[in-house]
Amino acid sequence: MSNICITAFKWVPPFAQGLVRDLRVRWALEEAGLPYSEKLLGPGEQNSPAHRSVQPFGQVPVYEEDGLTLFESGAIVMHIAERSEVLLPKDPAQRSRARTWMFAALNSVEPHVQNLTTIDLFFQNEEWAKQRRPAAEKLAQSRLEALASSLAGRDYLEGSFTAGDLMMASVLRNPAASCPLHGGGEHVTGARPRT
Amino acid sequence: MSNICITAFKWVPPFAQGLVRDLRVRWALEEAGLPYSEKLLGPGEQNSPAHRSVQPFGQVPVYEEDGLTLFESGAIVMHIAERSEVLLPKDPAQRSRARTWMFAALNSVEPHVQNLTTIDLFFQNEEWAKQRRPAAEKLAQSRLEALASSLAGRDYLEGSFTAGDLMMASVLRNPAASCPLHGGGEHVTGARPRT
Repeated sequence: MSNICITAFKWVPPFAQGLVRDLRVRWALEEAGLPYSEKLLGPGEQNSPAHRSVQPFGQVPVYEEDGLTLFESGAIVMHIAERSEVLLPKDPAQRSRARTWMFAALNSVEPHVQNLTTIDLFFQNEEWAKQRRPAAEKLAQSRLEALASSLAGRDYLEGSFTAGDLMMASVLRNPAASCPLHGGGEHVTGARPRT
Repeated sequence: MSNICITAFKWVPPFAQGLVRDLRVRWALEEAGLPYSEKLLGPGEQNSPAHRSVQPFGQVPVYEEDGLTLFESGAIVMHIAERSEVLLPKDPAQRSRARTWMFAALNSVEPHVQNLTTIDLFFQNEEWAKQRRPAAEKLAQSRLEALASSLAGRDYLEGSFTAGDLMMASVLRNPAASCPLHGGGEHVTGARPRT
């Protein structure tokens, strides 16, 4: 019996649907076979003192279980993944390799994809965005192309599906990441989205 | 006896000195008391096929030990931290909390600080950068202020020094992160930089 509770938003605008970071955590919980309940934040609640006390940056998701509170989707997925060999191998070296891809997704790929998305979703008619977009796109593409190169010929980032694929796939769900990953990486880009 | 080898750059321009990501890994190795050797990349070597085969994005650091190769400073620091209670507590809940701050540093703080730095170092005379800077600074500051709030009254992000402080401090070494963290957080911003 699990007492896991995940905090997410009650509603997000259409452009964000399917892209909010609780999806990664829900997916990991499904893979690990762990049941969970939800706490859904209404308008404005993300910046309430109560929410900020568990999530300093006013974001989602938050993970709560028997007195333990975690934030950051990466840390939460890693915490869940350690309970399930579906998500992280038992072998320490293989485990560290899988985690390398989790960090690559969150620190080497997502920031560049996110910068491009920010321009396209919120600022596309602004002069600065028009000037900046070509270089921002080039940066994002260079990371995606590097990723495609290291995937070449393989179905997953390591020998089999891990939390590294889960995290990378969740970053690649972003529309700004859709361009250069053709002809490879289908398993990562679409890897088992059960939720 | 350790066979750890860290790949870094032979030379970087003055603005990057002290900010390259091998510093985090060297710091973690010093805390854990693990000796290591260095492999230093000369000009252009970062994009060589040999380097790209171990670091898909052409970055540093790379960690090599007895046939295991890791990249991403976050994954490497975590791998090292698991060998030393100075960096990660043994208790699983405390360990997950410490890791939460590692991910917060790399995914919730660094991307915004980095965007501001990119403007200031490389594009400050460009029109798009002048238009974008105020909002980019506001974003970075909001993350730093949230961090300062959650530090208030404490010396470390959790009860004692962990790899979470190490990673956050290494992000806060960035000059763009210097503004709002006064009156608190000295232990995190300057936490034990032995290297």
